[in-house]
Amino acid sequence: MSERSYLYRGRILNLALENGRFEVVEHAPAVTILAKRGGKLCFVRQYRPAVGAKTLELPAGLVEPGEEPVEAAKRELAEEAGLTGNFEHLVSFYTSPGFCNELSILYLARDLSPASAKPDDDEELTVEWQTAKDMLEKVKLGLEATSGSTMSGLLWYLNHAAD
Amino acid sequence: MSERSYLYRGRILNLALENGRFEVVEHAPAVTILAKRGGKLCFVRQYRPAVGAKTLELPAGLVEPGEEPVEAAKRELAEEAGLTGNFEHLVSFYTSPGFCNELSILYLARDLSPASAKPDDDEELTVEWQTAKDMLEKVKLGLEATSGSTMSGLLWYLNHAAD
Repeated sequence: MSERSYLYRGRILNLALENGRFEVVEHAPAVTILAKRGGKLCFVRQYRPAVGAKTLELPAGLVEPGEEPVEAAKRELAEEAGLTGNFEHLVSFYTSPGFCNELSILYLARDLSPASAKPDDDEELTVEWQTAKDMLEKVKLGLEATSGSTMSGLLWYLNHAAD
Repeated sequence: MSERSYLYRGRILNLALENGRFEVVEHAPAVTILAKRGGKLCFVRQYRPAVGAKTLELPAGLVEPGEEPVEAAKRELAEEAGLTGNFEHLVSFYTSPGFCNELSILYLARDLSPASAKPDDDEELTVEWQTAKDMLEKVKLGLEATSGSTMSGLLWYLNHAAD
């Protein structure tokens, strides 16, 4: 039997010891959206305090309590990029299951059109459109810092671009 | 200026508040290895307390203090799969930069041969060989749980398999 003793309960995460031994971070699921228009994908650039750098990532955000993941994906794409579309679930995986239960849920958004949404006050970000190939090359060269969910989305797109 | 106040300093991670506001997890960099033989890739199945499930992931592990990432990749592939080979760095990304500084460093290992290494006592795992396509299909269907680094590696392989 496993037992968790909590060391910290916070705003976006909890920290616990499982069976007095394994450090475990509890974190809400996150959605990431591959939004394509023409030959380019939508990215957001923002400062990430945890890594001390501005990253370039696919639009993404946390699923709120009681919210369906696809609704979170629609909300995040509207808030971050002012867009809506037809959403399709692609794949889900744990971002770093060695210590954290964060599930990353990847969506494709097609047939994009403008959405009206109030940006999250917490976030200062800019939207940039890039081809998947250019972005992958920049990450390989270390010219852009990005997330594992973005990397999976980019590579998914390159694999399925002919679909 | 950013300032971190530490709430916890532990074995594999630290938890801090940045500027009294942002919850930040400090975590060592990790290596993930795409080891191919014939048409199949090497995976390890192990119980992950953080997600309460057995995942199937590419061989992976943390970079130890003072260790070069490529040395960590060689050590992990030897410990987990009893293999060595020629290592090539593919790409690096943050696993979940919204809250954590863990860098995921992806390697390809070619020309595999047996390595003698003592398995890490902490780890109980089994090695399984699967084709990238089969594994991707199982993750899509929810039949296997995996990591973002594994997903990136799998999709990388499918993109570059003709190389």
